[in-house]
Parts: sequence; structure tokens; C-alpha cells
Amino acid sequence: MSETPQSKPPRPAWAPPENFRRRVPDGDTHERLVCDDCGFINYENPKIVVGAVCLWEDRILLARRAINPRKGYWTLPAGFMELRETTEEGAAREAWEEACARIEIDALLGVYSVPRIGQVQMMYRAKLVSPDVAPGPESLEVALFAWDEIPWKELAFPSVTWALNHWRETRHLPSFTPFVSPADYPGLR
Amino acid sequence: MSETPQSKPPRPAWAPPENFRRRVPDGDTHERLVCDDCGFINYENPKIVVGAVCLWEDRILLARRAINPRKGYWTLPAGFMELRETTEEGAAREAWEEACARIEIDALLGVYSVPRIGQVQMMYRAKLVSPDVAPGPESLEVALFAWDEIPWKELAFPSVTWALNHWRETRHLPSFTPFVSPADYPGLR
Repeated sequence: MSETPQSKPPRPAWAPPENFRRRVPDGDTHERLVCDDCGFINYENPKIVVGAVCLWEDRILLARRAINPRKGYWTLPAGFMELRETTEEGAAREAWEEACARIEIDALLGVYSVPRIGQVQMMYRAKLVSPDVAPGPESLEVALFAWDEIPWKELAFPSVTWALNHWRETRHLPSFTPFVSPADYPGLR
Repeated sequence: MSETPQSKPPRPAWAPPENFRRRVPDGDTHERLVCDDCGFINYENPKIVVGAVCLWEDRILLARRAINPRKGYWTLPAGFMELRETTEEGAAREAWEEACARIEIDALLGVYSVPRIGQVQMMYRAKLVSPDVAPGPESLEVALFAWDEIPWKELAFPSVTWALNHWRETRHLPSFTPFVSPADYPGLR
């Protein structure tokens, strides 16, 4: 049987081009993704996720995700920090994009490093400027939950649970040390 | 006069390849650097710099830079956070790489967003495990300075000054709210 040319599956957009290779550039100490053709070095560093526990009186804003990962599950407004913004501006932008919510940042609840996925999640405590919230394009619905109403089994990500609990612990404190990721969380490494 | 082929100057390694173009990918809200040939999307997000004010008794560890930017100026051990580490581990790694210093992280002093350069600088308070320090490959010399001896006019970066002052303000506090970048710093945007 002769070999017939096979059409390769298309490379997904997040995957590096085929001429990229992992190697340690001159004078560096870490492996980088380098283009063998032109020498372009694609430095990969951890990405920052910014989000907030947003309060209206004693109710907390959650959004049900319209997209994967974890479509259909409830999350705090949060997402990747972009260039040309501060961490606080990023958290406010995400609240606007995901829940049409205007917020005022109040305190830094946690700096959650998750080395396994190359993320540092910075979650803030914030006040809603008004209770008028609505789903953005990435949300199916948004709602304000009293503590006893939070759908704990339908939360999208572990850090949503961490931030909610850390908010609860510090809700009467004007100033405190931000929390870090729980050391016993098995998905940390 | 006939045109002669000119050799182009080599493209520096940090510059994107020529077939990369800035455009908004489908379903996205921000411009990204996209390869016109293969569709690779080079997401660019702010990078995290991790560092520490490292104390031995009441003296502070500084390192004089052997490399640009700001070669010859004094800095706190700090550098880009790498994948597969937490922010605290990154700060400890930088202290080791730049000053052969073993440290114990104690508190988060500041989360300094600098949108102009796409960075979030996270500076910690730390204790040196021993006063045995020595220059790493990126340092000309290292030294332990009493507060009155700090070479303020020879500090490498604004955030070094911020972190030192924020350490001074909170040095007797076990718990406090981390500082942010001074709003009046002209290089912020």
C-alpha cells in the first residue's frame, strides 16, 4: 500500500506555529518558545486575572457563564487583565463587560497564584454604584445573592469560592492582609 | 542611478515577525498581534514583576545592576515572574539570582500597576535568613544599607523608591492594606 498524503487537522489559534521550538536563548536561564526561522522570542509569563466580589447592600453579584470553560456555572465578574489599565481598572472593566455593573473598588481580598495554569488571580472587594445589572455578551444571566442563597455547588471556579469566603471573613475590616491560594488546593501545581 | 538591493538591519529578537499584524480577532474586543500566514494569536497581557525589600536586622539589601536598563544603579532584587511559580516564590528566586540571598517573605507591601509599560509590580517585605549575600550574574555588587545610607539618587527605578518608603511606613505593622502606585507619578500612563 502506498502512502497517501493525509490532510493534517488545522492547528488551533492558541497553538504556536510549527517552526517555533522550546530552547534557552543566549544569556537566559529559562526555556522560551523561539522561532527557528527569524529568532522571535515569545516570552510566556503568568497572566493576571482581575475580578471582584461586588456588593449591593448585603447581596453579592454573580454572573452565569454563557461561554466555556464552565458554561452555565456561576462566577464573580473576572477576566484577563489587559494592557493599558491598572488591576483595579481591569476588575471594574470586567464587572461592566460581564454584568453591565458600575463598581467602586474598596479592598484587595486575595492574590491567588495558580502555578499549574500560569495565573495570578487578583480579587477585590467592591461596591455596586447601583443595583441595575444585566448580562453582558459572556453571561446568560446575572443576579444579586444573599449569602444564604449562593449556589455553592454551581460555582464555576475554585477561586470564586475562595474570594467569597475571604470576603465573608473580612467584611467588617477596613484594612487587612490579602489572602493567598489555599495551600491544600490540589489543583495548585 | 539604478537601485541596488539594500541589506535590511536585523530585526531585534523582541520585535514581532513581519507577517504579524494588529487586528481584532473574531469574537474578541481587543486588538491582538495575529500572524497573517497561520492565524497564531500572540495575546499580550501585562507582565508581573516580583521583588522584595529584604531585611537583615535594620539593614536593607540592595544590588547594583550589571545590566541595562539602569546599569550601575541600585535596585531591590526584583524581576519578571516566571511560569510554574507563585508570586512569593518568584520574589524569593529573584533575591537568590541577583544577590545569592535566602529570604522569608513576610508581607505584601505594594501592588504597583504601571500601565505605560504593561507591568504590575508586586513588592514584598522579607527577612534575610542570613547576612551572607553576594552579587549574582546580573549584579555588580550587593550591600546591606541602613535607612540613612540608602543611595536615593542612585536608585534604578521609581518603584524601588516607592517600596522602600512603603516599607518604612509599615515596618511595625503585622497587617496592612498593600499600597498602589502613587497617582501623581508622571510615568504611570
